Amino acid sequence: MSKKKIGIIGATGYTGSELARILLHHPEVEIAAITSESRKGERFSEVHPFFRGLIDQELISINEIENMDLDLVFLALPHGVSMDFVKEHAADPYPIIDLSGDFRLDTPEIYEAWYNKEHVYKEGFENAAYGIPELFRKDIRRKKLIANPGCYPTSAILGLAPLAKEGLIEPNVVVDSKSGTTGAGVKAKAATHFPNVNDNFRAYGVKSHRHTIEIEDTLNKIGDAPLTVQFTPHLLPVDRGIVSTIYSRPRPGVDVSQIGDIYEAYYKDEPFVRLTDQPPAIKDVRGTNYCDIYSTYDERTNNFITISAIDNLVKGAAGQAVQNMNLIFGWDEILGLQQVPMNP
Amino acid sequence: MSKKKIGIIGATGYTGSELARILLHHPEVEIAAITSESRKGERFSEVHPFFRGLIDQELISINEIENMDLDLVFLALPHGVSMDFVKEHAADPYPIIDLSGDFRLDTPEIYEAWYNKEHVYKEGFENAAYGIPELFRKDIRRKKLIANPGCYPTSAILGLAPLAKEGLIEPNVVVDSKSGTTGAGVKAKAATHFPNVNDNFRAYGVKSHRHTIEIEDTLNKIGDAPLTVQFTPHLLPVDRGIVSTIYSRPRPGVDVSQIGDIYEAYYKDEPFVRLTDQPPAIKDVRGTNYCDIYSTYDERTNNFITISAIDNLVKGAAGQAVQNMNLIFGWDEILGLQQVPMNP
Amino acid sequence: MSKKKIGIIGATGYTGSELARILLHHPEVEIAAITSESRKGERFSEVHPFFRGLIDQELISINEIENMDLDLVFLALPHGVSMDFVKEHAADPYPIIDLSGDFRLDTPEIYEAWYNKEHVYKEGFENAAYGIPELFRKDIRRKKLIANPGCYPTSAILGLAPLAKEGLIEPNVVVDSKSGTTGAGVKAKAATHFPNVNDNFRAYGVKSHRHTIEIEDTLNKIGDAPLTVQFTPHLLPVDRGIVSTIYSRPRPGVDVSQIGDIYEAYYKDEPFVRLTDQPPAIKDVRGTNYCDIYSTYDERTNNFITISAIDNLVKGAAGQAVQNMNLIFGWDEILGLQQVPMNP
Amino acid sequence: MSKKKIGIIGATGYTGSELARILLHHPEVEIAAITSESRKGERFSEVHPFFRGLIDQELISINEIENMDLDLVFLALPHGVSMDFVKEHAADPYPIIDLSGDFRLDTPEIYEAWYNKEHVYKEGFENAAYGIPELFRKDIRRKKLIANPGCYPTSAILGLAPLAKEGLIEPNVVVDSKSGTTGAGVKAKAATHFPNVNDNFRAYGVKSHRHTIEIEDTLNKIGDAPLTVQFTPHLLPVDRGIVSTIYSRPRPGVDVSQIGDIYEAYYKDEPFVRLTDQPPAIKDVRGTNYCDIYSTYDERTNNFITISAIDNLVKGAAGQAVQNMNLIFGWDEILGLQQVPMNP
Repeated sequence: MSKKKIGIIGATGYTGSELARILLHHPEVEIAAITSESRKGERFSEVHPFFRGLIDQELISINEIENMDLDLVFLALPHGVSMDFVKEHAADPYPIIDLSGDFRLDTPEIYEAWYNKEHVYKEGFENAAYGIPELFRKDIRRKKLIANPGCYPTSAILGLAPLAKEGLIEPNVVVDSKSGTTGAGVKAKAATHFPNVNDNFRAYGVKSHRHTIEIEDTLNKIGDAPLTVQFTPHLLPVDRGIVSTIYSRPRPGVDVSQIGDIYEAYYKDEPFVRLTDQPPAIKDVRGTNYCDIYSTYDERTNNFITISAIDNLVKGAAGQAVQNMNLIFGWDEILGLQQVPMNP
Repeated sequence: MSKKKIGIIGATGYTGSELARILLHHPEVEIAAITSESRKGERFSEVHPFFRGLIDQELISINEIENMDLDLVFLALPHGVSMDFVKEHAADPYPIIDLSGDFRLDTPEIYEAWYNKEHVYKEGFENAAYGIPELFRKDIRRKKLIANPGCYPTSAILGLAPLAKEGLIEPNVVVDSKSGTTGAGVKAKAATHFPNVNDNFRAYGVKSHRHTIEIEDTLNKIGDAPLTVQFTPHLLPVDRGIVSTIYSRPRPGVDVSQIGDIYEAYYKDEPFVRLTDQPPAIKDVRGTNYCDIYSTYDERTNNFITISAIDNLVKGAAGQAVQNMNLIFGWDEILGLQQVPMNP
Repeated sequence: MSKKKIGIIGATGYTGSELARILLHHPEVEIAAITSESRKGERFSEVHPFFRGLIDQELISINEIENMDLDLVFLALPHGVSMDFVKEHAADPYPIIDLSGDFRLDTPEIYEAWYNKEHVYKEGFENAAYGIPELFRKDIRRKKLIANPGCYPTSAILGLAPLAKEGLIEPNVVVDSKSGTTGAGVKAKAATHFPNVNDNFRAYGVKSHRHTIEIEDTLNKIGDAPLTVQFTPHLLPVDRGIVSTIYSRPRPGVDVSQIGDIYEAYYKDEPFVRLTDQPPAIKDVRGTNYCDIYSTYDERTNNFITISAIDNLVKGAAGQAVQNMNLIFGWDEILGLQQVPMNP
Repeated sequence: MSKKKIGIIGATGYTGSELARILLHHPEVEIAAITSESRKGERFSEVHPFFRGLIDQELISINEIENMDLDLVFLALPHGVSMDFVKEHAADPYPIIDLSGDFRLDTPEIYEAWYNKEHVYKEGFENAAYGIPELFRKDIRRKKLIANPGCYPTSAILGLAPLAKEGLIEPNVVVDSKSGTTGAGVKAKAATHFPNVNDNFRAYGVKSHRHTIEIEDTLNKIGDAPLTVQFTPHLLPVDRGIVSTIYSRPRPGVDVSQIGDIYEAYYKDEPFVRLTDQPPAIKDVRGTNYCDIYSTYDERTNNFITISAIDNLVKGAAGQAVQNMNLIFGWDEILGLQQVPMNP
């Protein structure tokens, strides 16, 4: 049987090159088109020289995909740009997996409040599935537009889902996250200038980071009791990876000794969630679609502590997008995603 | 007037070399003795080649300090070794500033519970001052034994003191700390092997780190209402520095809008605490005795968020020890401690 | 057809885990045995937790492989230990690919001079093929013992081979190499303690590094005119990767304008050598079996400058070993080795 | 006696902030003016928040220095901008120490050839002293314009000077240099984007870097025999520091066993050159004005190998500039420059 023809819309960023890295060896697809408006006409391997000899195909304009008979497209575009594509191509037959934040939130109003931007395609919200397969597998399978989750939200939501789902915790939750620098994108700016990051560490976006609402929104969809999330991101002097350290408190009457079993039951059939007996490190998951989760209860303080680790470019972006594609096409979810962690 | 004669007991570790770095240019002291049992007879600059031409004096045995007429000694010894020195030298006339954890806690019983070790000099506890000048200046001035604080506790306690002192917060506090690798000491081990740390990140000591009790103990000394601290340390791929992100909740009735003023009032005369309007970064304080603190209130979640940054080897160890020495001798507290942050 | 049964002798080091990473997805082999004397009885994923769920098989003792009917073994053992294995198993039917330095040099005498160690199996030398496929493909195919090359030598030899083969250069060659820290092995020691490597850089082994003779020996096997190599290794604050900057001078009469063509002709059919028009970076090859090579001639100085980049754990160790295995079994040389560079 | 009034022209870059770091504690000067056209009106500590509480003075425009009666100015301006300042202020009474490359080369013609830029103040060349005190102390003392050397040239020239001075080496010299990222300046660009540098390494500017001619020019001023320098810079994933590994060959008849004595004799009275018996590391000199030099002869290859290490922002820029100022004012050369290396 012939392979599915895939388009990657947006080639120059990290999600674009990471999609290419994963899709290149996916047994059921071929990368039929990679687009870039700023670099069209150049080879993909001119933009990303490490692909020399691996992907030398020419970058095309977005306008050229019309007649290509694509089976699915990934949008590796910035926030605010994806919505234009989705709007214009809403009638096209292929499913769209959007890696931006444009369709992740509950309503256009919430989007506009947290993204400070008018949304041009409000109709998209009701048709979009939020693409965390572990939580919304059924919905993903039947939707044509997938809002691929943010990197921080993926780590926080997978860490909290078992507790939120069962309504086991008090409403006030702390998510203290630390991310590698690729999360800030491919564009050079002062915040990611090497001497500003190397041997350094700081928090940013305190109280105001957009992923706050994405985490809250999603947890409140799966659980009964509304949670309020205090989310604080920090910039690590590493390339990839997110560790989220999550603090919550059991509701009165909850059998805290069951925390291990709760996670076990929730994730027992998930190929990409590994429960660990030690706090997971970034390099345990680097380059892979795994989310490693450690959870424990502290009797002395009456807190649950949950620690999750993902690769922000894989489970936090391109890998999860491919997992969603596998779901959409009814394939084994792990196709193309069996990388071994790069450690060291 | 002649300079005070100072002894550094323990030369091979980071606190030893950092004390030397600071004391070398202190205008009122001379480094009269540096001891090392394992390297005695060698020059200090053979152990630390970067001191070549700066400190080439010979390392001596601890036994040789008896007749040296020292004015003060710093103990840069491991936990469990310091107590032996203090016991044997309790009758000596010079003040001792102990950089280990041996006399920091409230009682020998608490020590033995958290350090898993019998304490050989229980009498030391009542005579020791806990050496955070910003909190215990008066006590430090009149004691002969200073328990120089742990690095994590310094960052957490300075961050929380204004809130704890005034009894403004609920008992359950989260301290999520991230430290550079020098905090783990000079000895090579798997946990600090370069490929295990570089481009990596992880939590450790969850629920059980000894600094937990040091933080709690101290905060409960200065405040009315007992606090319980959930302390989680993490290992950063950086050399120096600690950032602590601290989450607490105001007690009912507290005027949360005053948080800025509370910190301002508490620290307004402190030369080494700088209040910032942005989350501080490690490199803002690297190489210096500063503790930079940012604090804010999140209306949406009803949480206080406080973020502090120190250099673990300076304000978290050798610098604070020198600050304590300055207090003991009645000097200006900033003598020898006016380094400019090394950035980048 | 059934898969070949492979043994990995020595599981705890970086070459062991890297072999496992590559062989796990090799379509024609199964990892039948992984041995470790110090950790036998434990799971492979207990020693390397990032393999959790991927390779959970039990580590066995080397003594247990006798009756396993293995088709090939890789020796991921330290220098000086491999030779014992080879000696004892010389009569066994399976080919051995030895990743140590024990059989790389020309004669036992040279070995003993540079390794300061008596060699227990001198007979091995004449039966061993030096495992750089690009140079010795034919020899590798017909030998039962492969001396897998050192990491630095691989980078230097592939960089110089086209010039050495044709006798185009003067005898005095400078190889200035810079390596990631994994090259120093998995064992924690002062030289690889994080604070000694991070944000730091230095040369080591000046004039005396053992790889000097391996480079010279090999180049002199393929070329007419003897070369003398000044090899200086340096330790980079990175995990993986070697960049070698190589300086040589054309012999009188050599047509220096042909340097590009010479490399092109020499490597045109090699799947793992990529010629570049810019100096290659470590991340261009990280995680892969590629050797990227840039070469140029400087008219002003009359020097050739050649720069090569490899991943020391892949093309410099485990990947090249798998490439040699592919040759031995007559498979396509790229089987199992099609990883895309991990960048970033 | 009153302190000398110093101006720093250009505040936003690394040389500007590093000058401020050093001058702040210089006992004989006060920082009377710091200029910035882009940030004038802001405080210095707004541009560099780590100076909060240390240097909070307001940045002024370059136009405002006219009536300030400055005693000396440092130009921390980009190449091509400095020359304008020097031209306009040539008649002003104060000495100028220019940290750019605008007056370092022998003639305007050479400048224009290597910098691809017309020079607007050709008269400046004959009046400028090249500011390496170890080589040109007398000249520096009597000139009013100091061309402060480039960072790479400082490391290369100090490494080679003893050999070049005495005419001991063959003309063809290889300088293989590795530099921290601050050498590329404060401005964020793709080449210094964190994920492009971290865990990575590469050469750049092969055959064409401007510092090539600065090294050659200067060495040829002090020695009898003309040298040709093959200079290859590489970008290290570190903040600060340069290590240059230098390869040269003795002329026939040279007594190679004397290499140690030659360096010893040449540098014996220099406060900032330390000769070492091991290859120096960046952290041995970080934050200081030291140049550590190791030199050796390899009998096997008949090469001299010299390795030098400096901090590119100190001995390679601001520190050497202050050393030049000390010379100009007839002060002890080490004033303000006694920092202890920051290690780790």
